[in-house]
Amino acid sequence: MLDHQAIITAYQRIKHKVHQTPVVESTLLNQWLGHRLLFKAECLQKTGAFKFRGATNVLAKLSENNELPQQIVANSSGNHAQAIAYAAATFNIPASIFTIASVSKVKAAATEAYGARLHKFASRTDADQAVQEAAQQHGTLWIPPFNHPDVIAGQGTACYEALQQINAQVDAVFAPCGGGGLLSGTLLAAKGIDDRIQVIGAEPLNANDAACSLRSGKIETLPGPPDTLSDGAATPAVGSHTFPILQHCDDFYEIAESQIAYWTQWLQHLLKLHVEPTSAMTMQAVMNWLRKGRFSNPQTCLVILSGGNIDQAKMAQVWQEDYLARLPGSAEQQSR
Amino acid sequence: MLDHQAIITAYQRIKHKVHQTPVVESTLLNQWLGHRLLFKAECLQKTGAFKFRGATNVLAKLSENNELPQQIVANSSGNHAQAIAYAAATFNIPASIFTIASVSKVKAAATEAYGARLHKFASRTDADQAVQEAAQQHGTLWIPPFNHPDVIAGQGTACYEALQQINAQVDAVFAPCGGGGLLSGTLLAAKGIDDRIQVIGAEPLNANDAACSLRSGKIETLPGPPDTLSDGAATPAVGSHTFPILQHCDDFYEIAESQIAYWTQWLQHLLKLHVEPTSAMTMQAVMNWLRKGRFSNPQTCLVILSGGNIDQAKMAQVWQEDYLARLPGSAEQQSR
Repeated sequence: MLDHQAIITAYQRIKHKVHQTPVVESTLLNQWLGHRLLFKAECLQKTGAFKFRGATNVLAKLSENNELPQQIVANSSGNHAQAIAYAAATFNIPASIFTIASVSKVKAAATEAYGARLHKFASRTDADQAVQEAAQQHGTLWIPPFNHPDVIAGQGTACYEALQQINAQVDAVFAPCGGGGLLSGTLLAAKGIDDRIQVIGAEPLNANDAACSLRSGKIETLPGPPDTLSDGAATPAVGSHTFPILQHCDDFYEIAESQIAYWTQWLQHLLKLHVEPTSAMTMQAVMNWLRKGRFSNPQTCLVILSGGNIDQAKMAQVWQEDYLARLPGSAEQQSR
Repeated sequence: MLDHQAIITAYQRIKHKVHQTPVVESTLLNQWLGHRLLFKAECLQKTGAFKFRGATNVLAKLSENNELPQQIVANSSGNHAQAIAYAAATFNIPASIFTIASVSKVKAAATEAYGARLHKFASRTDADQAVQEAAQQHGTLWIPPFNHPDVIAGQGTACYEALQQINAQVDAVFAPCGGGGLLSGTLLAAKGIDDRIQVIGAEPLNANDAACSLRSGKIETLPGPPDTLSDGAATPAVGSHTFPILQHCDDFYEIAESQIAYWTQWLQHLLKLHVEPTSAMTMQAVMNWLRKGRFSNPQTCLVILSGGNIDQAKMAQVWQEDYLARLPGSAEQQSR
């Protein structure tokens, strides 16, 4: 189940095709919290998110076996669409993205600039149905956003690469959970290197299907579209490939919307990176874990900053209230 | 007047004391505009702005001559305060910052975390008077924010370093203008390397004292505190050291507030960096210069992204309207 070798193989395969993103830290944040926090800046990955790693691993593996398709299709209105568009272009394969008509102009423009064709539908259900039909065509490959072993292995290379970059013992690794591709890949990567490394997930309280699934022991689905700033973690359910891996998480936290906004402001301010709410959310899991552990020694934590694609409406919402007035680790912040 | 050697000397002096910040670019932006834009990311400099270069150069030069003071004072509520606080700490010298009582909590906390003492006053006039008195004390050095040859030389190292990092002929360099420290340093750096490089400044239309001064041929002062998103360029007047250098600018543009907000959104989105409005403003100067030149060949432009410190109120203002719906270089954007 926990196949670390798949991560190493994926990393060897894609390392020259993806950006080696930097690992960064904030002296001030470390000083305020009394622990060392390292951030893997996947917001600086090509197309602005870790998703490019999974898409590239799928195509590079097919290319090795001379099995590249004639065309690629995918359904997404988010980071997966742009990753597929760009990865397909690097392999010179035409790609079609099936999305909703209300997709933001900036995301649509990026997807098309990367060379993909955009097909717009009235509803997500219509788009999902259309992609299924398109995938039946001869020579067509549908690349799913998370529920595929090669996608999971690709996403895990972010953590694997970070652990190679860091010259220190890492105590815990934190990643957000939507469909679970990034978090399950992170588990395979970290535990294979050192199974004492704790791997911890974070999910919006308003989209807590994974937390519910981990409690009940079976895959649970959200009752409807969730209302959350973390659009990257709004997936209705985890997958059959990701769930059995996610069950190995050492801890898992459900995060309130105000905490997601709080950490988006602070990480943008302290790291000077345009991190998306889904990434910043993970910092509250770090805070909860550190508080629960009552550690006497400073801990070293690695946080996977999954991406940096945020539309204007979400940015306006994030920056509405002044969270920078409450310092991280202060009594004011901790009382929330 | 145009003393390039001062920049080289400053760079040799401080290069191991400051971050070598990356030069980044956006494939999408280059594609949309048909030119190559390179960005020097000084928002990733220590304390989040280029100001750390000038402060470090002043102190490192004094240290070389065994002339370090017993204490340092400065008046600022912005990036200069944090730069002085951090630079003083690295030389183990106590620093006092004189500022207004309404300074934001996050800036005050950072200045204090860097080890400086913060003295708060009811008005800027009171703070400026107090720093003058404090500077009279024995062994005390007042470091001004821009009007000092060693400060100017330090700021110029950002452009100098960038031109070393870039393996291409640069046609034009762009920098924002507040008191003129960064822009005059940039002039000395670029023209000394190749005097065919155009050096172009940008200033908020709402705080256009430098543009007025360049037109009239003498230093003009703003009638009162300006209303602009670009707080880093709200300085009431340029200085006696910076002005004669600024007069060598090849071009200079006054930028409207809506254009400042437009480019802050777009640069944060495309570069995934938390750039401040003062930095992003410079992009509109690039657009105006490119349009005016009607170039038949793609131009290579270097933009100095001065910093990344933005308070919550400014971020909320920047992200109020959806500028991401108007693509850079599109008819919609150009009509504004």
